Amino acid sequence: MLGANSRSGRNFLQTPGPTPIPERVLAAMNRQIIDHRGPEFQALTHRLLANLRCVFKTKHPVMIFASSGAGAWEACFVNTLSAGDRVLFVETGHFAKGWAATAKAFGLECDVIPTDWRSGVDPDVLEARLRGDVDRKIKAICVVHNETSTGARTSVGEVRAAIDAAQHPALLMVDTVSGLGAMDFRHDEWGVDVSLSGSQKGLMLPPGLSFVCASEKALAAHRSAQLPRHYWSWDKMLTMNADGFFPFTPGTGLLFGLAESLAMLNAEGLDNVFARHERHAEAVRRAVEAWDLEVWCRNPRHYSPAVTAVAVPAGYDADRFRRLVLDYYDVSLAMGLGPLAGKVFRIGHMGHTNDVTIVGAVAAVEMGLDIAGIPFNEGGVTAAMRFLRRPY
Amino acid sequence: MLGANSRSGRNFLQTPGPTPIPERVLAAMNRQIIDHRGPEFQALTHRLLANLRCVFKTKHPVMIFASSGAGAWEACFVNTLSAGDRVLFVETGHFAKGWAATAKAFGLECDVIPTDWRSGVDPDVLEARLRGDVDRKIKAICVVHNETSTGARTSVGEVRAAIDAAQHPALLMVDTVSGLGAMDFRHDEWGVDVSLSGSQKGLMLPPGLSFVCASEKALAAHRSAQLPRHYWSWDKMLTMNADGFFPFTPGTGLLFGLAESLAMLNAEGLDNVFARHERHAEAVRRAVEAWDLEVWCRNPRHYSPAVTAVAVPAGYDADRFRRLVLDYYDVSLAMGLGPLAGKVFRIGHMGHTNDVTIVGAVAAVEMGLDIAGIPFNEGGVTAAMRFLRRPY
Amino acid sequence: MLGANSRSGRNFLQTPGPTPIPERVLAAMNRQIIDHRGPEFQALTHRLLANLRCVFKTKHPVMIFASSGAGAWEACFVNTLSAGDRVLFVETGHFAKGWAATAKAFGLECDVIPTDWRSGVDPDVLEARLRGDVDRKIKAICVVHNETSTGARTSVGEVRAAIDAAQHPALLMVDTVSGLGAMDFRHDEWGVDVSLSGSQKGLMLPPGLSFVCASEKALAAHRSAQLPRHYWSWDKMLTMNADGFFPFTPGTGLLFGLAESLAMLNAEGLDNVFARHERHAEAVRRAVEAWDLEVWCRNPRHYSPAVTAVAVPAGYDADRFRRLVLDYYDVSLAMGLGPLAGKVFRIGHMGHTNDVTIVGAVAAVEMGLDIAGIPFNEGGVTAAMRFLRRPY
Amino acid sequence: MLGANSRSGRNFLQTPGPTPIPERVLAAMNRQIIDHRGPEFQALTHRLLANLRCVFKTKHPVMIFASSGAGAWEACFVNTLSAGDRVLFVETGHFAKGWAATAKAFGLECDVIPTDWRSGVDPDVLEARLRGDVDRKIKAICVVHNETSTGARTSVGEVRAAIDAAQHPALLMVDTVSGLGAMDFRHDEWGVDVSLSGSQKGLMLPPGLSFVCASEKALAAHRSAQLPRHYWSWDKMLTMNADGFFPFTPGTGLLFGLAESLAMLNAEGLDNVFARHERHAEAVRRAVEAWDLEVWCRNPRHYSPAVTAVAVPAGYDADRFRRLVLDYYDVSLAMGLGPLAGKVFRIGHMGHTNDVTIVGAVAAVEMGLDIAGIPFNEGGVTAAMRFLRRPY
Repeated sequence: MLGANSRSGRNFLQTPGPTPIPERVLAAMNRQIIDHRGPEFQALTHRLLANLRCVFKTKHPVMIFASSGAGAWEACFVNTLSAGDRVLFVETGHFAKGWAATAKAFGLECDVIPTDWRSGVDPDVLEARLRGDVDRKIKAICVVHNETSTGARTSVGEVRAAIDAAQHPALLMVDTVSGLGAMDFRHDEWGVDVSLSGSQKGLMLPPGLSFVCASEKALAAHRSAQLPRHYWSWDKMLTMNADGFFPFTPGTGLLFGLAESLAMLNAEGLDNVFARHERHAEAVRRAVEAWDLEVWCRNPRHYSPAVTAVAVPAGYDADRFRRLVLDYYDVSLAMGLGPLAGKVFRIGHMGHTNDVTIVGAVAAVEMGLDIAGIPFNEGGVTAAMRFLRRPY
Repeated sequence: MLGANSRSGRNFLQTPGPTPIPERVLAAMNRQIIDHRGPEFQALTHRLLANLRCVFKTKHPVMIFASSGAGAWEACFVNTLSAGDRVLFVETGHFAKGWAATAKAFGLECDVIPTDWRSGVDPDVLEARLRGDVDRKIKAICVVHNETSTGARTSVGEVRAAIDAAQHPALLMVDTVSGLGAMDFRHDEWGVDVSLSGSQKGLMLPPGLSFVCASEKALAAHRSAQLPRHYWSWDKMLTMNADGFFPFTPGTGLLFGLAESLAMLNAEGLDNVFARHERHAEAVRRAVEAWDLEVWCRNPRHYSPAVTAVAVPAGYDADRFRRLVLDYYDVSLAMGLGPLAGKVFRIGHMGHTNDVTIVGAVAAVEMGLDIAGIPFNEGGVTAAMRFLRRPY
Repeated sequence: MLGANSRSGRNFLQTPGPTPIPERVLAAMNRQIIDHRGPEFQALTHRLLANLRCVFKTKHPVMIFASSGAGAWEACFVNTLSAGDRVLFVETGHFAKGWAATAKAFGLECDVIPTDWRSGVDPDVLEARLRGDVDRKIKAICVVHNETSTGARTSVGEVRAAIDAAQHPALLMVDTVSGLGAMDFRHDEWGVDVSLSGSQKGLMLPPGLSFVCASEKALAAHRSAQLPRHYWSWDKMLTMNADGFFPFTPGTGLLFGLAESLAMLNAEGLDNVFARHERHAEAVRRAVEAWDLEVWCRNPRHYSPAVTAVAVPAGYDADRFRRLVLDYYDVSLAMGLGPLAGKVFRIGHMGHTNDVTIVGAVAAVEMGLDIAGIPFNEGGVTAAMRFLRRPY
Repeated sequence: MLGANSRSGRNFLQTPGPTPIPERVLAAMNRQIIDHRGPEFQALTHRLLANLRCVFKTKHPVMIFASSGAGAWEACFVNTLSAGDRVLFVETGHFAKGWAATAKAFGLECDVIPTDWRSGVDPDVLEARLRGDVDRKIKAICVVHNETSTGARTSVGEVRAAIDAAQHPALLMVDTVSGLGAMDFRHDEWGVDVSLSGSQKGLMLPPGLSFVCASEKALAAHRSAQLPRHYWSWDKMLTMNADGFFPFTPGTGLLFGLAESLAMLNAEGLDNVFARHERHAEAVRRAVEAWDLEVWCRNPRHYSPAVTAVAVPAGYDADRFRRLVLDYYDVSLAMGLGPLAGKVFRIGHMGHTNDVTIVGAVAAVEMGLDIAGIPFNEGGVTAAMRFLRRPY
């Protein structure tokens, strides 16, 4: 057994972020930094912001922060809310929970709709809760588009319909960190007020950039919000962005890469990108079914096109299994997070990948199950391949 | 005249951040991202944190945030102070002022010692002010090590001596964003409580990482500080770092580069690095003197080894001059900031550079002065070269 | 169906040269060229030549030419022979034939031992032919170590034994273009007089460098050889190499990469590298057997660890099949060459690769057979995986 | 004093080949190799060959060899001549002499018009010699467009006029290795029959590719030429190129870079590229004049726009001087070759460069002269700058 670094061949990075960097993106970042107060940078900013709006499907401003996605969680709240405001979370998993922890840290009152962490948001439950908020104390509703920890997707359109049915005025905030660029997202059509994302998922970049898109309603809330803010301040950002600049030093190197990854998404076509993710997700689930293991997400309508969490049988350690797969085959699977630690492993199938890479990843899992002594039926790879014989 | 992008040859990036990226650093970043929850990453974290401590000259923890330097401004306060706490700033320039604005945004009471923006901190003035604070209301003293906007350096050792002379218990916070890696910095010896820096200056990386180093006293303050925090939280960071991981997704790509830039600093030797910066600063100042222009920093003891601000004669526009130099010679000079806009231009001479690059930059200024019609005496380049004939 | 360029994910380059470039090698080449007459280059040359000798397992000089492997074919002859000299070839396949064509172009008399292009050299046949050369007219015996076109390996040790048994004084010349770095090669122990190789195979580089290693006997022959030569001249090369330089501009960029790829081979250990190739070859053959297709090489002792040629059933077009696999799955297979065109496809499994990449390649073939309508039994990937479950 | 590798900042590569690689070209080469028998490669070949014809200003075929420029010397002869054919050289310097040595190695009869190695070809002398060849025994006339060793350019148009005036039917062969892409070259208009070049000069690539362009007359000669050839064979090349492929493995990595460098030349415009070279050459010569040193090329009409050779005063060692400049300033100057060794140093000013880089290089020379104790007048840099103040 060899450490990943001294091994031959390429690591298969099957985590739901970071995802593999296309070599075109690496090449685009392989250059000197430029002055972020000069004219070349200015043109770059304008181009990036316009192209990002296409990915968010919005006419509203998209902002880019030098931070990881968790920074954008913070940016949502400090720009729109005041201490003591009530925020409603649907705790679909580890990341919904983490986002709520951010809210608490800022003195927001958190209402939480619990779930079994095995599905997306149930719009009926949400609607009932909102109808119950007769005083309209809830100022914001926070949902995670793609819950990376469980492999469950939420229909944001259904969430919007539930809010409308309840005629609730709260802001809708959506974490689409691992959704954007991998599955359809429609900021404007779905009436999202604040959406946030990150660079190292469907946008195929290294981590280090986060994105926030704000509706007019969110921008109005911004003007009266009282939470302290500086680095994440939207008004500073929007004022400077209007001229093609940033209030604080931007992550110029990653911005070069972003220009390229946006060009790649555009060249492939967003609909084709989404169909590709669905295809790979289906192939992986067919393998899981053939192995007679359990896809963690219970609700087929919520299956994530970006990541599949797989439960290991009771008495087996998912983390030991993952280490074996990494040591033997140099395939990086993702761990179970929080209460799922040791109980599930996750296969990322998002970003810059293709059919045969997915087969390789599935094969590593299948061979690893055997080595780890976890009971399973052979045939997962065969099932995946039978599906992937179909043309796109 | 051509846009920088279609020009032949290499841009001379003479800004005091970003600075030129060594090709070794570019090459180190030119690789796939790895799983930031895996064993290879874990080993990288431990190595980086140890090596960063050498650069800060500290035994205390150094933390790495995915953000630009302005994020670290915020991190200092939210981790150590509570709303209403009093903080003393010495406004040596634009960045000291910006840092104070951050403090105000978080509800801190800001005392400001004004200066003429043409020198570093005067320790006598500081001492007097601290002696005057008989109730010890000041909780933190904030100074900028190298004021990038004016080209003036502050002696942090003198600041420490002033605080000690006044027997003041406040925390000492130092912004060494454009100091670290370019001039001597001694976190422990100088009794700094919180120092902060960024990646795109003396550390020769793209922007996108910030660094914070905290003394035991700062860590103690952290435990009782009440300002809201999440992304910047030290306890989360230190807990995770102990195992080689991060609470939020780290900027993995830049961390690969950081490993290489730290190796380069170590190979050259920090003292050699600092001497090199002094040499280039002296060469630039000799040119300015020969041109009969004015070095903006009035106090020779405070001359920055990293950047020199140069005043243009009254009636001339420093920004027009800079644009000409960029258009004609593809040399990026830095603008005057805030009240210095249009009055000064700044020549960065920091990071990965050498004698002949400095001569090229000085030559661009000299030729540009002529083209811009700004009165000057020829001979700046000659003066710089006479100095640079000396061996290191 | 999409062109390879607009597709998502990484191409699987399963050709027996070029082979995938490790990202460490790409990074090593990602730098400015240096003066090939300066001291840094000089040190590089000395290091490279020493390390190359380890790979050839020789104490004799190894020379590096800026050319592809076919240039080294020419270099062998023009440096050791004179017009009209007789050379014996064993035509094991397309590349043996191509090498003989080179000899003919230079006016050498070519004796050819034919084969069925489905095995390596038969040492008994060779020995008989040499015994029959009673006048010792044959000046050189040329064999191909790994016949890339057929997937058959020749035992050079057996060839040497046959020559010795026949007590024949001819030079032994070995083309190990696709052997070196993928399977054991022992220039000195096997008494090879001239061996030649290329960069884009087991050495994991882009094409553009060729290598020649010459025994003392070959160097002696060089001194009296009369064929015209200039670019390929050994004496110029050896004279300049002694000082760390080259007679003509060397391929500096590739040399940076070579230093890195040699370091990688050394780190993994040559024996481990060879065992890895055997492992992957066996996995591929098990798949072929499971499909009920035919491994083109008839003789199991001659199976190549670097490439496997697979016959398609009569009436089917191997090239159409390859195009489908490339279009559907972005996996590059190699074509049949010369008389094998359309009859075989070749799966390269050499260089920088690993188990799961091999599974992915095998899967593309299996899915492609189905799409192409070529009769086969499912189960090739399963067979390969069963084998690859074994630890190294 | 430090070795170049441990130094800070960028090396100034002022050699007349290799020249600095643009980062866009490095980025273009920073990718996996593709199958050189596949459709993506095929499209690349067609595009490259079309764009190369623009640079050669020809409608005739341009061929690309994996070799350094010296290989193309050989390619010219073996494809067009037969042993014993007479070839006329004008020995303008080291490279003309080296090319003649190639011819001799292939058994060609070499007539040589000597020169003082301080100017280009004198067309009157050439015409007289050709008129004297009453039996038309001379089959080819070989001239070097830009004699890299002396800094002297030859007017190929005048050479053509001399040949026409003498009504001589010999083939005109031109080495434009260090001319193409740096100064005007017109294969068709000047009636050149064979022109040859290399990658690491005006085409701004690493070394490793050579180029040959052949007229119809040259192609006709090819059909009857008897010299042995294989690797350099035009018929194989042209046959394969017609389909977008190569007879032997091409230097794929460099071809990626070539596509980018040709795009850059096209974007800047060839005329602008040539004017830029003239500008930098003039700046350098003004510096030499100011130092009261001697430009080696005697004839101002022959001054090379790509490289300037400078004589050091008798009693001083140009090589020691160059080493000092490299050690102190990391500026790579080129050595004197052959009889000029130690007597001249050469300043390359070609390829991807700009005004301030040229000033830096000139400054290194000026400072180095002082350190080396070579008598000179200060003011070279000042003279260069006065010239470079002019707009392009």
